[in-house]
Amino acid sequence: MSYNLLKGKKGIIFGALNEQSLAWKIAQRCSEEGAQLVLTNAPIALRMGEINKLSEETKSPVIPADVTSMDDLKKLFEDSVKHFGGGIDFILHSIGMSVNMRKGKHYTELDYGFTQKTLDISAISLHRVLRTAWEMDALNEGASVVALTYIAAQRVFPDYNEMADAKSLLESITRSFGYHYGVKKKVRVNTVSQSPTRTTAGSGVKGFDGFINYAEKMSPLGNASQEDCANYCVTLFSDLTKMVTMQNLFHDGGFSFTGVTNAVIEQMEK
Amino acid sequence: MSYNLLKGKKGIIFGALNEQSLAWKIAQRCSEEGAQLVLTNAPIALRMGEINKLSEETKSPVIPADVTSMDDLKKLFEDSVKHFGGGIDFILHSIGMSVNMRKGKHYTELDYGFTQKTLDISAISLHRVLRTAWEMDALNEGASVVALTYIAAQRVFPDYNEMADAKSLLESITRSFGYHYGVKKKVRVNTVSQSPTRTTAGSGVKGFDGFINYAEKMSPLGNASQEDCANYCVTLFSDLTKMVTMQNLFHDGGFSFTGVTNAVIEQMEK
Amino acid sequence: MSYNLLKGKKGIIFGALNEQSLAWKIAQRCSEEGAQLVLTNAPIALRMGEINKLSEETKSPVIPADVTSMDDLKKLFEDSVKHFGGGIDFILHSIGMSVNMRKGKHYTELDYGFTQKTLDISAISLHRVLRTAWEMDALNEGASVVALTYIAAQRVFPDYNEMADAKSLLESITRSFGYHYGVKKKVRVNTVSQSPTRTTAGSGVKGFDGFINYAEKMSPLGNASQEDCANYCVTLFSDLTKMVTMQNLFHDGGFSFTGVTNAVIEQMEK
Amino acid sequence: MSYNLLKGKKGIIFGALNEQSLAWKIAQRCSEEGAQLVLTNAPIALRMGEINKLSEETKSPVIPADVTSMDDLKKLFEDSVKHFGGGIDFILHSIGMSVNMRKGKHYTELDYGFTQKTLDISAISLHRVLRTAWEMDALNEGASVVALTYIAAQRVFPDYNEMADAKSLLESITRSFGYHYGVKKKVRVNTVSQSPTRTTAGSGVKGFDGFINYAEKMSPLGNASQEDCANYCVTLFSDLTKMVTMQNLFHDGGFSFTGVTNAVIEQMEK
Repeated sequence: MSYNLLKGKKGIIFGALNEQSLAWKIAQRCSEEGAQLVLTNAPIALRMGEINKLSEETKSPVIPADVTSMDDLKKLFEDSVKHFGGGIDFILHSIGMSVNMRKGKHYTELDYGFTQKTLDISAISLHRVLRTAWEMDALNEGASVVALTYIAAQRVFPDYNEMADAKSLLESITRSFGYHYGVKKKVRVNTVSQSPTRTTAGSGVKGFDGFINYAEKMSPLGNASQEDCANYCVTLFSDLTKMVTMQNLFHDGGFSFTGVTNAVIEQMEK
Repeated sequence: MSYNLLKGKKGIIFGALNEQSLAWKIAQRCSEEGAQLVLTNAPIALRMGEINKLSEETKSPVIPADVTSMDDLKKLFEDSVKHFGGGIDFILHSIGMSVNMRKGKHYTELDYGFTQKTLDISAISLHRVLRTAWEMDALNEGASVVALTYIAAQRVFPDYNEMADAKSLLESITRSFGYHYGVKKKVRVNTVSQSPTRTTAGSGVKGFDGFINYAEKMSPLGNASQEDCANYCVTLFSDLTKMVTMQNLFHDGGFSFTGVTNAVIEQMEK
Repeated sequence: MSYNLLKGKKGIIFGALNEQSLAWKIAQRCSEEGAQLVLTNAPIALRMGEINKLSEETKSPVIPADVTSMDDLKKLFEDSVKHFGGGIDFILHSIGMSVNMRKGKHYTELDYGFTQKTLDISAISLHRVLRTAWEMDALNEGASVVALTYIAAQRVFPDYNEMADAKSLLESITRSFGYHYGVKKKVRVNTVSQSPTRTTAGSGVKGFDGFINYAEKMSPLGNASQEDCANYCVTLFSDLTKMVTMQNLFHDGGFSFTGVTNAVIEQMEK
Repeated sequence: MSYNLLKGKKGIIFGALNEQSLAWKIAQRCSEEGAQLVLTNAPIALRMGEINKLSEETKSPVIPADVTSMDDLKKLFEDSVKHFGGGIDFILHSIGMSVNMRKGKHYTELDYGFTQKTLDISAISLHRVLRTAWEMDALNEGASVVALTYIAAQRVFPDYNEMADAKSLLESITRSFGYHYGVKKKVRVNTVSQSPTRTTAGSGVKGFDGFINYAEKMSPLGNASQEDCANYCVTLFSDLTKMVTMQNLFHDGGFSFTGVTNAVIEQMEK
């Protein structure tokens, strides 16, 4: 299936690790819709993952970049602009890592050095990316930036740990920078708040299976899959959504506005 | 316990039916805090309920009023002002009835005549009350109006039926009239979105027990009781909250900002 | 420009009056994207408007229907299904009329008979439409329903009168029926909260010019136009947004998440 | 005026600098309402400010603490518990500093070292405070924690710079830790989102006068003052609000739910 919705567009995809990654699927769909891509991830993620497969499939170069390094980001954008022979039309930010979670630290016993790292990687990285593009004037008029987030930014999911706070920060940066980039060059910046999905990142969360089942039962349409998310991001990168900015868009089968379902009530009565 | 927080204040309490009623408990606490009251309810509710007990206990007259009748409301305010010998300082609106629910009509098969009645009684009644006071200039400067609502106005609880829509309408009227009355006379108008409680009204809802248990497990502090609600309303009627207006205030033990709890996840894994 | 995003899809468009109408532009774009349409409006609106032009241009039949009449709606769906030779894939609900505004009644002096009519036409009509489709099983699996709304449902715009309350009710019905139709047949129901536009409906609002300028200055991307809105609705009717439901989607150039702009501050300092 | 609402309660007040401070006024009102207090601030703020005056007036010891130092916080809580001869009933967190703003850095050219410091002082400090109390079990059952915030956490105010992002993070930490402390010991944690006030902190913001006038015109009740804020915080520290937690409570004269006012429209038409 292709509508050529992104024909002629050039985009940078952050965060494709392997076939389970949301970013992987999004890159595939963008490519099918006619976009040219640059793929990027942290050097260590590139070694662990299988990105070469995606690179071949989508005919996209892979440019490593540590999102906490301004030098790396500068090089990424320079090389991308050179590769594309022009400005960039869209960016996907699919980056998140809870260092405390990895190290088994509960929310009430955070290591603040880890927290700082989590915020830097998962949230401030979006500011760094946008600011690098801003300084180089690397984005085309009306370009579209999407960052992936999760509803833990609004409501507490206890096992999501300090990543909830990181996502709140990410959504605030989306609004703040979205304002300035909108005024300057009609660039739009939004977050997509996606259903939980069985990705490598997601599976690190304690009690993830119980939780994903709960989300499935609490969503009138069920959980949105990686493929669904990719389709939705394609619309946000296209020219059909030019006036949508500074929004947090729930893509979750209705979870966010469902207080309870009959399926959950039945389970509670057991 | 009394702080004399409402000493010298005069208020009208809509909706006290029996000891389980939120309005009943609120009237008691307002009285304890030094307020003088007028109690009111629909003529039929007065016959069914036990309001005389509350009337004696709080030394308050009972004035019947059908909230869908402008004549009744006019008389209520006239008699209240006469009784108090002056203007009114606060109003509690605790009125709601889902006619479709009573008649066993599912949300997808509403009787629209019933729906109109539900909206009229449960939501537009707040407009009628405020407008009657507005036209008679019956509220004192800085008076406080509180209407009770439920989170179904924001998220779907399937068995709550058309009452969810009525509560959304109620909250909108709160904001709309709150704006005008704030500009005119510094009157503040807010809704309190209360935990589910075992009242006569609540117990009419299908699957209410399963639901109230779910809400209890989803609230870090548990469900708020009638007594808790009464205490909270006292603060909103007092002079300590003069700049709070047009808000929907969740009084729910944290339910509204909790995505899931460990207690619910455990139940889902059964 | 056409991506064939709606190729093979069949839709019903409510509310196209003339070339300024949002619904008019949406119908044009849906047609360009390959959809077959049925156009409908109230008999009186059909006489006043210029819908025949749109009907010819998009090769769509016009079927009159008063949205407050279940008989009319039933006939509309029966005729549409017959015309299409099958089920319906999408519906646009662009219907709103403030009777009090027309009659010059201020929000504090509403005629409640008029209010009831406003709610019936502008909000409950969505329930009637969905319920008619539900009973006839006229919507295809995964069909998409969009109703147009305005941010006055969340925040007070004083001259918007009781239409603010109607839009709150509309958005609640969107969630409530969206839940049931999602569970039953994966139908998604959303509202699009659009920038103010110079339509025949909009121009009836007092102080509309001052207001539209304010909105323009408060939106980092400026106000979204009819064309922009049409493009956005196309994405919501397409298969790329199958997991978005029960949402209120702001389509407003960033107005909704902007607290103030430098342009407005400058004006305030004059 | 005193209701003895906080009689017998013990609280720690962070952030009273001088008579313009919100925390100053809040400390005065808490003292009037019968609370015993410990005052604290960063050592440098203590030198610059006039806290001794407040200390004498409220008969409260001053204990210096850098909120980014776990050792300082531990000592603060130890000394406070010793001073009070028992656990703590409430905490006010009124701490915020935008390092980039002070250094004249625009949001698009943040120094990330400064940003990290801003987040640490203005947001993560709340986690440190709560975690210190948690580890020492220093809070009494049902204790109340309030942090002051601003609506820039929800909507963009361009000159508010990275402090907007810090406030979003603060509000998320409020929810996250509020969940855990609620489950453990019925402690409630909330933010109060206050009108802009002419404090020493506020006056550092560029274009503050134009902005404060805008806020005044956009609030049906006008901007809330320091005194108003103090009164509201007293209710949140009292036993009357025991079931309110994880909320962001707007205390702003209606600003947050007002889309526009006639006063602003008139100014726009000039």
